[in-house]
Amino acid sequence: MSTIAVRNVRRADPAAVGRLARYGVATIHEAQGRTGLLQPYMRPIYAGAAACGTAITALAHPGDNWMLHVVAEMIRPGDVVVVALSAENADGMFGELLATSYRARGAKGLVIDAGCRDVRSLTEMGFPVWSRAVSAKGTVKSTVGAVNVPVVCAGMLVNPGDVVVADDDGVVVVPRAAAAEVAAAAAAREAKEDAMRKRLAGGELGLDLYGMREKLAAAGLRYVDEPPQ
Amino acid sequence: MSTIAVRNVRRADPAAVGRLARYGVATIHEAQGRTGLLQPYMRPIYAGAAACGTAITALAHPGDNWMLHVVAEMIRPGDVVVVALSAENADGMFGELLATSYRARGAKGLVIDAGCRDVRSLTEMGFPVWSRAVSAKGTVKSTVGAVNVPVVCAGMLVNPGDVVVADDDGVVVVPRAAAAEVAAAAAAREAKEDAMRKRLAGGELGLDLYGMREKLAAAGLRYVDEPPQ
Amino acid sequence: MSTIAVRNVRRADPAAVGRLARYGVATIHEAQGRTGLLQPYMRPIYAGAAACGTAITALAHPGDNWMLHVVAEMIRPGDVVVVALSAENADGMFGELLATSYRARGAKGLVIDAGCRDVRSLTEMGFPVWSRAVSAKGTVKSTVGAVNVPVVCAGMLVNPGDVVVADDDGVVVVPRAAAAEVAAAAAAREAKEDAMRKRLAGGELGLDLYGMREKLAAAGLRYVDEPPQ
Amino acid sequence: MSTIAVRNVRRADPAAVGRLARYGVATIHEAQGRTGLLQPYMRPIYAGAAACGTAITALAHPGDNWMLHVVAEMIRPGDVVVVALSAENADGMFGELLATSYRARGAKGLVIDAGCRDVRSLTEMGFPVWSRAVSAKGTVKSTVGAVNVPVVCAGMLVNPGDVVVADDDGVVVVPRAAAAEVAAAAAAREAKEDAMRKRLAGGELGLDLYGMREKLAAAGLRYVDEPPQ
Amino acid sequence: MSTIAVRNVRRADPAAVGRLARYGVATIHEAQGRTGLLQPYMRPIYAGAAACGTAITALAHPGDNWMLHVVAEMIRPGDVVVVALSAENADGMFGELLATSYRARGAKGLVIDAGCRDVRSLTEMGFPVWSRAVSAKGTVKSTVGAVNVPVVCAGMLVNPGDVVVADDDGVVVVPRAAAAEVAAAAAAREAKEDAMRKRLAGGELGLDLYGMREKLAAAGLRYVDEPPQ
Amino acid sequence: MSTIAVRNVRRADPAAVGRLARYGVATIHEAQGRTGLLQPYMRPIYAGAAACGTAITALAHPGDNWMLHVVAEMIRPGDVVVVALSAENADGMFGELLATSYRARGAKGLVIDAGCRDVRSLTEMGFPVWSRAVSAKGTVKSTVGAVNVPVVCAGMLVNPGDVVVADDDGVVVVPRAAAAEVAAAAAAREAKEDAMRKRLAGGELGLDLYGMREKLAAAGLRYVDEPPQ
Repeated sequence: MSTIAVRNVRRADPAAVGRLARYGVATIHEAQGRTGLLQPYMRPIYAGAAACGTAITALAHPGDNWMLHVVAEMIRPGDVVVVALSAENADGMFGELLATSYRARGAKGLVIDAGCRDVRSLTEMGFPVWSRAVSAKGTVKSTVGAVNVPVVCAGMLVNPGDVVVADDDGVVVVPRAAAAEVAAAAAAREAKEDAMRKRLAGGELGLDLYGMREKLAAAGLRYVDEPPQ
Repeated sequence: MSTIAVRNVRRADPAAVGRLARYGVATIHEAQGRTGLLQPYMRPIYAGAAACGTAITALAHPGDNWMLHVVAEMIRPGDVVVVALSAENADGMFGELLATSYRARGAKGLVIDAGCRDVRSLTEMGFPVWSRAVSAKGTVKSTVGAVNVPVVCAGMLVNPGDVVVADDDGVVVVPRAAAAEVAAAAAAREAKEDAMRKRLAGGELGLDLYGMREKLAAAGLRYVDEPPQ
Repeated sequence: MSTIAVRNVRRADPAAVGRLARYGVATIHEAQGRTGLLQPYMRPIYAGAAACGTAITALAHPGDNWMLHVVAEMIRPGDVVVVALSAENADGMFGELLATSYRARGAKGLVIDAGCRDVRSLTEMGFPVWSRAVSAKGTVKSTVGAVNVPVVCAGMLVNPGDVVVADDDGVVVVPRAAAAEVAAAAAAREAKEDAMRKRLAGGELGLDLYGMREKLAAAGLRYVDEPPQ
Repeated sequence: MSTIAVRNVRRADPAAVGRLARYGVATIHEAQGRTGLLQPYMRPIYAGAAACGTAITALAHPGDNWMLHVVAEMIRPGDVVVVALSAENADGMFGELLATSYRARGAKGLVIDAGCRDVRSLTEMGFPVWSRAVSAKGTVKSTVGAVNVPVVCAGMLVNPGDVVVADDDGVVVVPRAAAAEVAAAAAAREAKEDAMRKRLAGGELGLDLYGMREKLAAAGLRYVDEPPQ
Repeated sequence: MSTIAVRNVRRADPAAVGRLARYGVATIHEAQGRTGLLQPYMRPIYAGAAACGTAITALAHPGDNWMLHVVAEMIRPGDVVVVALSAENADGMFGELLATSYRARGAKGLVIDAGCRDVRSLTEMGFPVWSRAVSAKGTVKSTVGAVNVPVVCAGMLVNPGDVVVADDDGVVVVPRAAAAEVAAAAAAREAKEDAMRKRLAGGELGLDLYGMREKLAAAGLRYVDEPPQ
Repeated sequence: MSTIAVRNVRRADPAAVGRLARYGVATIHEAQGRTGLLQPYMRPIYAGAAACGTAITALAHPGDNWMLHVVAEMIRPGDVVVVALSAENADGMFGELLATSYRARGAKGLVIDAGCRDVRSLTEMGFPVWSRAVSAKGTVKSTVGAVNVPVVCAGMLVNPGDVVVADDDGVVVVPRAAAAEVAAAAAAREAKEDAMRKRLAGGELGLDLYGMREKLAAAGLRYVDEPPQ
């Protein structure tokens, strides 16, 4: 494994990041062609958690949170730290002290494919974390991984500088170069959904709004009045 | 697979449904002889979610939420939509737009053996959902399943017209024909538990209230004063 | 299996238990050399749940909660009931009636390697439970297990009389004889962390505070300015 | 729960069962419209296990194999015993002694949504079992369930008298009344696949044999010669 | 955590170990009152694996197999090495080289609550391993655990010197002091089962052999001739 | 999602692929710095399966195996097909007919993060498959994914043209450009292990061969002669 820490990360355009922050994870995922989602086991540690920022990354080993200290120095205001693991592990690699440090450096939140602890303190601080588990299990600092290299976190490739958006629905990654385009697509999608929402709220059916009836018939759906015996 | 959508569903008696709505899932499950529970992985998307209504059903395929639009047309006020899957899948088949539509048609909630998204909006709307996962993953509309046929949802057979009761403890199904009888049994059970609760709160032991001491001795339990070395 | 119920349990020193109650699970786990944690699948049934007390134990069989009634008689004020299972099972062995009884006897909470039900009522009562699942599934009372014997609960050995501390981060066990020593170590750790927290909040880095830079270099971490191509 | 044991089961036509025995699980599943499969966690205890017969059913409780003795009396030559559980459980409910009894009564095999033990002996006997787990965990005989009622086993509804086919790929259920029709459809499918197999073996592509090229283009697949940068 | 390696282990009586080696895991588990089983996720790496010996133990950390080297020195002929983990981990901590060393020292096999690799070589060597996973993931040697202390492995307490018996059905532990008594009980059980097997093979029913009919009736089982509609 | 099929893939140097084929997955994983492993849930469908070849890739959707037909046309002799999924799914996307086609085109095997069926036929054919599940569940062909784009399969990034090596221990990916270098490192590692194996077989300890004793003492391991009480 490359055991390097990369200092300079080209981050996505702040204006585009700002626009992406207006939309939810589901909208952005759809707006970029149904891509970019981390596995759904990544859950926020408290309801209502939300974050949008530029990714800086760490690759850590099971039971070892050393790289989470190395990545702290790389944080610039507006970053979201993304931690991947070299093998499945749920130890509590991150807690209140690291959150205090990350916040002081300007981090917007953390996405970690391992465990998180001090959940009550983090909730009181309002520091959002998405993790695979909550665990108080302590870790060591003895094996070097890497910082700011491309990582696979919860099944998704994340490059340093990409945009990470996270909320109650999970976590989505937008490639750095696509940020502006995806923000525009998300805006368009949201506008379209606003119109649709009003009609659906009035009792109209998606079957009619989306013109599905013919396609359903063609695909073989048959309506019957009597239940099968 | 039968690819039909059944229009006419004989629903459980509304009066019985109303009586069942007074009781929790655990009480109803016990009242019908410890049957009817869906697997415990079915969890509400927010604490305090509760619903009681008549089931209408959809059978969908992995990654495809087309049938969730077809079933919308079948909703009558008081229904709970129950979605089963032809194979295990956690994609986010249901979100705020469908919830807006379902609510406009009178649905009381959704039980889905797949994923749900837009959790924050659904929570704000107070539209209760029980699902196997929260996931922003989008779906297609290309393969026909079935609507209002008997389905197995999270390990339990659900027939259209059955009563579905759901709360923080999970989801239970009461067969249509048994609704009144189960409601009566639940009322009796609750009354009995009220009496018991008062005595237990006063410090009496279940060992005495339920007359367990002799049975325990007969079954071989031995009390000792010294811990084993 | 020994089918005994032990009446006399030597409990940890109340003063030490009182001091341990000031600290979180993560702190205590670290203070005793990173030991004592139950598996992280043990989760509180509501956010903010917290308990600290002396363990009394029950060993139950799948689908059978009889021993939870036997252990009720053993509860003394300040106890936490710990229930282990002879085989993996998620049935809803504990609910509001037992909680009413346990509270009347003075229990501080329950840790159970099975399911829990009546979650809403328990939340309203403020009776904290850590369990592997929430499930309304009812149980029988027909097979004898044991009470106040050493048990393995969620992967950790618990002896009657040990101290159990539980919060949002999980559950940790402190051996009876070590309670005072661990409380002192936790206090020392907390004091040290307070100092650290202030400096981290001011923007200093753990890399410097913990003197990690030389160790990282020795371990092979290399800083680079350009990302790898 | 109904606590009955039904003596008379109308079984599927033996000739149809015999014809179904010629085909694999995947073929039969496809031949009946992609339905009838149990969840894929149901695995044979040894490679090469295969069975085809008429279902008789038992509904058992966690940790209790009493009903597996009751169902033994119902076995007629050619039956496959199907055991469902009232709640998830992996205890070793079935072993060599029961297999000896089942075989003496004429059973073709066992499908059980719980654990199995004595795997080596069962393998030597050639008695095929599909289970959710291998576990030596012993069980009690104290709670009554039901025999020869409709059950949900590993997510699929099984009625007594249905045909059960099982092999290395898993387990499929064919409704009693559909046995002859599905056998015919399976034969047709197999014939078609034989022809296809020869052409594929010769290097022809499914793209051409199934006429997929136009559909792929219509669905938006674009061929490019240069990989994306 | 205590970071000690204990040199002198009092092992179970070799004669008793020899007698226990005649019986399968299920028989021994039953013979000692249905206790002692490790969780069923512990599986042999090849079919037909079997081992019986005295336990020596190691407690390792996630991703770190250092203690597996320390324990090698403690092996005496007839030992089975038992490795527990301080947190869940599936890394490939053991492979062909360690197996070569363990065998040279006289080990009968390995039980490890983590991953194993070099499965093909180990199979060819006939060195039996029970593990939670097969994984090629490499480990480091940097954090000290403990050797020959009591450990919880896959949910079961194992003391150094206990007897470990493992086969296709899983792994069971017999406390050192109980070895002779359990071996005698296993012999008695096996004799009884031999007699039973013959009668069951002749077509007699467990219902009659075990005298269950009256108990079933008392417990509420009702026989009916017509299936329920 | 990009819905493209890339025709021209620059594959790793055949000579380097040939050299890599001599080594097991664990050796190659170590030789490239403990990287490149797919998650350990990827298991061969039969014991002894082994494959080494150049990756061509497909990205498929849950329940839809269309892209597995598209990728067939891209196969050149010596390729291993790697299929990733856009969301977790275990359906049986691959079976005997596709295997016949893949083999006719020269494929060495398949790695698929979904289900596989026709296991018995594939075993008889000797066509090796690594999958997350065995499942007979049929799929549709209606949604377009991508072919020969970089994919994340079972947690690991795979680029078309990379080398894939798979055996009983799992699956490892070697980047195309690193093939020769990793093959050399694997050869060196194997030579070193051969020497070590002989000494370990003679009873020498890893503690001495690897010079661990001082490091263990420095790290705090303490040898004691008496077990702790």
